[in-house]
Amino acid sequence: MEGGVDHLAPERNKSEFDVDAMKIVWAGSSHVLQVSERMARLVASDPVFRKDNRPMLGRKELFKNTLRKATYAWKRIIELRLNEEEASMLRSFVDEPAFTDLHWGMFVPAIKGQGTEDQQQKWLPLAQKMQIIGCYAQTELGHGSNVQGLETTATFDPKTDEFVIHSPTLTSSKWWPGGLGKVSTHAVVYARLITDGQDHGVNGFIVQLRSLDDHLPLPGITIGDIGMKFGNGAYNTMDNGVLRFDNVRIPRDQMLMRVSQVTREGKLVQSKVPRQLVYGTMVYVRQTIVADASVAMSRAVCIATRYSAVRRQFGSHNGGPETQVIDYKTQQARLFPLIASAYAFRFVGEWLKWLYMDVMQRLQASDFSTLPEAHACTAGLKSLTTSATADGIEECRKLCGGHGYLCSSGLPELFAVYVPTCTYEGDNVVLQLQVARHLMKTISQLGSGKKPIGTTAYIGRLEQLMQYRSDVQKAEDWLKPDVVLVAFEARAARKSAAVAQNLSKFSNPEEGFQELSADLAEAAVAHCQLIVVSKFIEKLQKDIPGKGVKQQLERLCSIYALFLLHKHLGDFLSTGCITPKQGNLANEQLRSLYSQVRPNAIALVDAFNYTDHYLGSVLGRYDGNVYQMLYDEAWKDPLNDSVVPDGYQEHIRPMLKQQLRNARL
Amino acid sequence: MEGGVDHLAPERNKSEFDVDAMKIVWAGSSHVLQVSERMARLVASDPVFRKDNRPMLGRKELFKNTLRKATYAWKRIIELRLNEEEASMLRSFVDEPAFTDLHWGMFVPAIKGQGTEDQQQKWLPLAQKMQIIGCYAQTELGHGSNVQGLETTATFDPKTDEFVIHSPTLTSSKWWPGGLGKVSTHAVVYARLITDGQDHGVNGFIVQLRSLDDHLPLPGITIGDIGMKFGNGAYNTMDNGVLRFDNVRIPRDQMLMRVSQVTREGKLVQSKVPRQLVYGTMVYVRQTIVADASVAMSRAVCIATRYSAVRRQFGSHNGGPETQVIDYKTQQARLFPLIASAYAFRFVGEWLKWLYMDVMQRLQASDFSTLPEAHACTAGLKSLTTSATADGIEECRKLCGGHGYLCSSGLPELFAVYVPTCTYEGDNVVLQLQVARHLMKTISQLGSGKKPIGTTAYIGRLEQLMQYRSDVQKAEDWLKPDVVLVAFEARAARKSAAVAQNLSKFSNPEEGFQELSADLAEAAVAHCQLIVVSKFIEKLQKDIPGKGVKQQLERLCSIYALFLLHKHLGDFLSTGCITPKQGNLANEQLRSLYSQVRPNAIALVDAFNYTDHYLGSVLGRYDGNVYQMLYDEAWKDPLNDSVVPDGYQEHIRPMLKQQLRNARL
Repeated sequence: MEGGVDHLAPERNKSEFDVDAMKIVWAGSSHVLQVSERMARLVASDPVFRKDNRPMLGRKELFKNTLRKATYAWKRIIELRLNEEEASMLRSFVDEPAFTDLHWGMFVPAIKGQGTEDQQQKWLPLAQKMQIIGCYAQTELGHGSNVQGLETTATFDPKTDEFVIHSPTLTSSKWWPGGLGKVSTHAVVYARLITDGQDHGVNGFIVQLRSLDDHLPLPGITIGDIGMKFGNGAYNTMDNGVLRFDNVRIPRDQMLMRVSQVTREGKLVQSKVPRQLVYGTMVYVRQTIVADASVAMSRAVCIATRYSAVRRQFGSHNGGPETQVIDYKTQQARLFPLIASAYAFRFVGEWLKWLYMDVMQRLQASDFSTLPEAHACTAGLKSLTTSATADGIEECRKLCGGHGYLCSSGLPELFAVYVPTCTYEGDNVVLQLQVARHLMKTISQLGSGKKPIGTTAYIGRLEQLMQYRSDVQKAEDWLKPDVVLVAFEARAARKSAAVAQNLSKFSNPEEGFQELSADLAEAAVAHCQLIVVSKFIEKLQKDIPGKGVKQQLERLCSIYALFLLHKHLGDFLSTGCITPKQGNLANEQLRSLYSQVRPNAIALVDAFNYTDHYLGSVLGRYDGNVYQMLYDEAWKDPLNDSVVPDGYQEHIRPMLKQQLRNARL
Repeated sequence: MEGGVDHLAPERNKSEFDVDAMKIVWAGSSHVLQVSERMARLVASDPVFRKDNRPMLGRKELFKNTLRKATYAWKRIIELRLNEEEASMLRSFVDEPAFTDLHWGMFVPAIKGQGTEDQQQKWLPLAQKMQIIGCYAQTELGHGSNVQGLETTATFDPKTDEFVIHSPTLTSSKWWPGGLGKVSTHAVVYARLITDGQDHGVNGFIVQLRSLDDHLPLPGITIGDIGMKFGNGAYNTMDNGVLRFDNVRIPRDQMLMRVSQVTREGKLVQSKVPRQLVYGTMVYVRQTIVADASVAMSRAVCIATRYSAVRRQFGSHNGGPETQVIDYKTQQARLFPLIASAYAFRFVGEWLKWLYMDVMQRLQASDFSTLPEAHACTAGLKSLTTSATADGIEECRKLCGGHGYLCSSGLPELFAVYVPTCTYEGDNVVLQLQVARHLMKTISQLGSGKKPIGTTAYIGRLEQLMQYRSDVQKAEDWLKPDVVLVAFEARAARKSAAVAQNLSKFSNPEEGFQELSADLAEAAVAHCQLIVVSKFIEKLQKDIPGKGVKQQLERLCSIYALFLLHKHLGDFLSTGCITPKQGNLANEQLRSLYSQVRPNAIALVDAFNYTDHYLGSVLGRYDGNVYQMLYDEAWKDPLNDSVVPDGYQEHIRPMLKQQLRNARL
């Protein structure tokens, strides 16, 4: 609480579980909770990190302000001697996209992952002290998803022992890289490696872009910002950039050579390092994206839940107070599944951390057997959680009615800053099809006795699952984890099996894959939803301390699963997994679960432990003092600097005074 | 075409129907097409109406620029002596929310609809010459949907023959009215009418807010802007306002007295004018909202369709060009149903115009019999079309991949400016429940022999529909309008009947309604989708001239219906209307329809006849010259005014030079 009256105290008194224990479950450990509290407070209490003014700033002021914050954050990190964990949390609580995200999140890891020992020794210290600032220049104007189609060239010139980096077409312009437009001094540039007239495909190169003396682009290099993006502040704090090369020369040793090397003579040599290491990085990046999805979703539901408890509309009896919006079943049926989703994504994100470590250990032991499954699984979860979160944030905004449309609600910004996640690091539909491809392969190999592993293990029981019919007889049967799990397994398996069968009718498999791709995407979604449900259930099989904590999570797990079942009822019915009657029972159980969650709703979002600064929402304030704050915030708008607006004399007055014909407009 | 090479010419050559004839169908008549072309060109060719710079402007410049445009538009309307139809089209092509929207769209109609003859004679000439500017001050900080809960009071003072307008609480502050914050001189204010200590509920009052001399708020009146809203430009061009009254006095004759009057003595008298007239206005307003939905949806799909034909990704064979994104089935399965929806909403909007006239004629003959059905129908269609359009715009943005996130794509603005439609003029969920209430009433009256009328007529065949089982045997059977129609009728009727039965189990009907509200909302959606499908089918029963035009529309009608069937498969299966096999056949037919639409896709969106100015999208350009324009647009961003950004010296340089410790940030 941050002082004053707590308008939500009656709600908090209703809750039936130990919120502090739940905070630890959400954070992952009491250590993480403690560090994150410390960092969140540090940011919230420092006026430099103020963000409520963001939507009102023009692009230039907005951007300059971000430079100030990002640099100041780095200064504080040094002054306070924060460790890596603390520094990264501090940056995330600053909650503003900045060039540093790409420097730390992409540039440094690219050098670590793709650079040789020598390259790492040369470049990492510079980057880690921020003596250079780097970005990740992959996407081009003409190519995003299809990385192999990139057009920028890096041609080896054996005469000078250099690569010539060049942008041969308009569409080969680098386009989108964050931090590129105005800040980065260096970039990892992806370009087609050409030696001796031969195209060896795409590789990474470290290229200096700007002079370290005056920050001007080096000769042959054109750089700019690609312009305004969705939302007021949102990603407009970031200098997503455009970059063109006119035959720019770099020394040979600036090609990232951990996997492939070009010799002095221009010969391409493969090193002993397995190419598969790249997939390890991909699993890592996507794991962080899933974790971020749970954060974004939980912020949105925290705002919508608190406001739904404050807002009252209709239902007054004899002059008494109106009904809290959160008491309406239509509100609950939209809001509570999103609370459940936030927790579900949190736990599947936690599990992905384990998966990443498992994959890395195996890679180091040259065991590549689990890679395809791990790759498909992370691709699918990235796709599923980010799409659901983007939609969920917008749903939360709508759940806040008209006031959700104000920037001061925090939700427009949250949405605008979140949605690109559905596109970057793999377009969500492209990723679904990758998952589907893996599922089809898994099924096609069943005959050869290859046993499906990991999240596809259930496909090994395909025959049995094809026979399955749910034995649910009463609503409460749907509370049993086994009952839910097997229904989701059967649905996913049968969706996949059905498409596989349709695919087999095509003489050209690729043509079939293309023709049936919409069905394939649906099969992939069914598979990924099963993963999330099963990991939530697994989490609940472990010991979870704290009064009532486990019970709340069991309810949320049921809500998440039954909500999906209701939403995708067509799948479950058309595959014959359940009967219409059983579908109705699930719906009935869902309603009863909503009633059970209702008194705990506020406590369940309190457990996310967000400061008012981080939430950045007058509707989501901890103390529920919504109306006064809405009112106070309004007056900060620049338009309110004067009572009579600029433009009155030139435009409004001549109209009112009927002097328009002579007015010069 | 607007000059230069037409990159989409090959696409246009593929089309199999007469685009010019389709343009007339879309516009409604050749007269409307001709006027709209003239007005669109007038706006597009005038540099004052430029809008590409909107996202970059700070709030003050943005707003001042809107004042300029709105006033200039009015000047042009006078100079060119435009009639009402032309003026209204010109304003819509200016495509920027402004105070004039509320002045013409709400203030003037409110006086027309609720003012007496005397009041109309006094106020309308002033408003029509814009000697006064008015807004519509209904919504308050604490009350939106529940209009009867408004708190502002208008207390009659018999001593002075005045009303005292007052804001007794913080939550009674007027909040949201467009045009209020900075521009309006007058408002129709909704307040609780109090005479002699008795509260008579909410009525409208004409209140002058600002001095006509210096534009300052009159004594006792506090006005401001409520601050930034979703999006860059979007509704930030509008001065949505806050308004508080401190015992402000207005003459008695400024109460809008067409329906109720307050006498000199303070007695409330009902006039002979039926209260039901209000519903006529509501039908009118919602009809325009549905028409606007088809416009917004068609703009978005026009952009996404053209860009999908330009964009290529993956699938290159032997160095040939990559596959056009529009050829991917996943893209078609998302995009083509939205093209179909645009047309579907267009035709149901056309029908609503007829419904409005029908209702008004009956009202004038004191026939109120069709009002409840007409009211439910328009409420439902407003809810259905606006929700689908908001989601559709965002889907189109995602269909444009990363570049859709740039403001220059036009889609972020289109989304941000459109979404409030889901909330204003009735929150979409609240409206669904109104529809459901009407459906339940219709069913409950079946026993008493009351025959359902209009869009609920099918409920009269409830018994028969309960017996229905689809006889579809092959995919093409789903192309028959009757087959589709009866399946949608059966599904809607059974959904309603099932909830009605569950409702009957509750001893307290209101409690039941509240408990089952999520199911009720689903029944309402099923009913409204049926209306749209049936009106599309009705449209196709008429003669439609032009080579191939009708055939294209038949395909789109089938796509619209079968897409909904697939999306809501659970409904159709759980109510037993169709079998899983028949559901699969519908899906199969859908795929084949997508292939048939594919060569006509560009022509189908060309038929909307939008200028490049109106679309405001580099991705949706008529000539498909996407990449060059994306590139050119980028350089206009203010951040590109200098190569080295403002903030380099203060922030970036000290970091790079490791001089942060001493830097003052």
